[in-house]
Amino acid sequence: MISACTRIVFIVALVTTTVWADDLVLRGMGSLFVGGRIAEVSGKPVKEIVRVPGGPSSKLDPNGEYQVEQMYVQYFLPKERKGKLPLLMWHGGGLTGATYETTPDGREGWLNIFVRKGWDTYVSDAVERGRSGFASPDVWSGDPVFLTYADPFERFRIGDGEGSWNTDPTKRKILAGSQFPVEAYSDYMKQIVPRWLSTDEAVIRGYLDLVDKVCPCVLLAHSQGGSFAFKVAELRPEKVAAIVAVESASAGHLEKANALKDTKVLLVFGDFVDQHPRWVAYRKLDLEYAGAITRAGGKVDVINLPEVGIRGNSHMIMMDKNNQEVANLIQNWLSAQGFVEPGSGRDLR
Amino acid sequence: MISACTRIVFIVALVTTTVWADDLVLRGMGSLFVGGRIAEVSGKPVKEIVRVPGGPSSKLDPNGEYQVEQMYVQYFLPKERKGKLPLLMWHGGGLTGATYETTPDGREGWLNIFVRKGWDTYVSDAVERGRSGFASPDVWSGDPVFLTYADPFERFRIGDGEGSWNTDPTKRKILAGSQFPVEAYSDYMKQIVPRWLSTDEAVIRGYLDLVDKVCPCVLLAHSQGGSFAFKVAELRPEKVAAIVAVESASAGHLEKANALKDTKVLLVFGDFVDQHPRWVAYRKLDLEYAGAITRAGGKVDVINLPEVGIRGNSHMIMMDKNNQEVANLIQNWLSAQGFVEPGSGRDLR
Repeated sequence: MISACTRIVFIVALVTTTVWADDLVLRGMGSLFVGGRIAEVSGKPVKEIVRVPGGPSSKLDPNGEYQVEQMYVQYFLPKERKGKLPLLMWHGGGLTGATYETTPDGREGWLNIFVRKGWDTYVSDAVERGRSGFASPDVWSGDPVFLTYADPFERFRIGDGEGSWNTDPTKRKILAGSQFPVEAYSDYMKQIVPRWLSTDEAVIRGYLDLVDKVCPCVLLAHSQGGSFAFKVAELRPEKVAAIVAVESASAGHLEKANALKDTKVLLVFGDFVDQHPRWVAYRKLDLEYAGAITRAGGKVDVINLPEVGIRGNSHMIMMDKNNQEVANLIQNWLSAQGFVEPGSGRDLR
Repeated sequence: MISACTRIVFIVALVTTTVWADDLVLRGMGSLFVGGRIAEVSGKPVKEIVRVPGGPSSKLDPNGEYQVEQMYVQYFLPKERKGKLPLLMWHGGGLTGATYETTPDGREGWLNIFVRKGWDTYVSDAVERGRSGFASPDVWSGDPVFLTYADPFERFRIGDGEGSWNTDPTKRKILAGSQFPVEAYSDYMKQIVPRWLSTDEAVIRGYLDLVDKVCPCVLLAHSQGGSFAFKVAELRPEKVAAIVAVESASAGHLEKANALKDTKVLLVFGDFVDQHPRWVAYRKLDLEYAGAITRAGGKVDVINLPEVGIRGNSHMIMMDKNNQEVANLIQNWLSAQGFVEPGSGRDLR
């Protein structure tokens, strides 16, 4: 009878927990804005505008104070927390935090995947991207730049470099064995947002404000975001316990790399890098920076995915078809560095 | 023995289920982009730019095709679905979907509140706002407009109209009994993004693409978003089962209002409207439109919150301190219209 009872208890417990097996169970989710400053504009003429067609007209005085350079952050806190520290996901140039959400072809992105692995995850839009808004030409110098439809295809190692794009899909030169969901390229392009080239300092201030608010933490940063991650870690080495830099598009300041001697660093590079001089150049900068960290007594691991048998990755690794496999590899590295609670390395899925 | 066993089973079931009582249990979450078009730019000079400081320089040819006018949508699907249809949340002018997330003072916004009530909830950034990106001056005519720091305070019935703002917080004329979390006004201002005044048609096309993808549905729309909701419903009356218009800043086209005769409509207005001519004007437009729907045989309910004893609401009702109370009122209306599964009206919290 005891045995039967135990069995029933076990079955009930199993049913009431495994019913959520594929669900995301969050103890909280929300968003916040960090950083920014008040900018003053003066000496401009007052305009008369209609804000909504059919509505009343009103004056628009461009003079005054403006809130600028803040940063938007959205967070997801899993019920079963396993990552010892918050995980902050920083996107690359011309993109927003949407980079880490659903992939262009509709699969779960690294946000869902790492939340399922038990990480408190913070996805941000860099200053002047996406929901962080942008300042007027009265506040910022220079214009934003816009990527053409062909640009990421040729530059992000989806197609085989310059000239690989064609408006006729059958004539595009896709890299052989590409893991990028190229059939959803049009959906990927909808993620691309304009960016300024003059706002790096403001972007870094925004990230510093975030780090000061929610760290110590692990930074997972992509492309341009990698460069920001290293520069922020130079300024807050005690707050940045680890950096996973995915195809970092240049690194930090070589002469300040010694600040990262206690920060665990992983550099991840995809496939086809050797054939594309731009990415050879970025990897060279990253490895030089890694060398400077190492010489200061720090620890840097480098994974060239093809060298561990993972082939076909574009620059957009987090949305490539094998994004779960690469996420698992990153998780294993984080676990090996001690950032996952003992016995909690198992995937929730 | 059986009785003890039953008791144990009951306790185990209770523990393994009620442990999630305050958690958000989602059967899915993600994001997608809808709509948009390819725009062609030609005849512009090629520039040489450095994308990342320290990185290699590269050519920027502004000529070519661009992806423009797409719309970003994030969705949250509760495990215990109770809303019969998806609930789409559309924000107001100068804002993004962040409107519906955590309030400026850190409480749960209507996104969390309605997900907890069991609604499949879709929060979007209108075309040219936030993560939807924006097009270059080569594609769109006109400049974006930027709100000063004082503008929403004076215009959105937080302060008592023009002249109520002061840089010295102790000298600001806050409306007596205001429910707006005025102590977090600086955080609210970080949500404000630029907007264009020339893009209404593109915005409506974006919303139509979303409606065609995920509806029939209920639209919850605020301010400028209300105007878009009515115009979209005129074009897709069979897809829009209900509209909850929260302080809609003008409505649809009077001559097309009869299209909404089978769409349930609720108009919600906050406090202090009568003292502020701008809002009297918008409410008049909304009520005229409601009258046209009614004359066509349709049904419109109007709630002036002070008339039902709910006082102090600003224009930003979803982030006012009583946002849960107003959400409950909206939920009750939706339930009364038959959009909540029988017996499922209880709040999950």
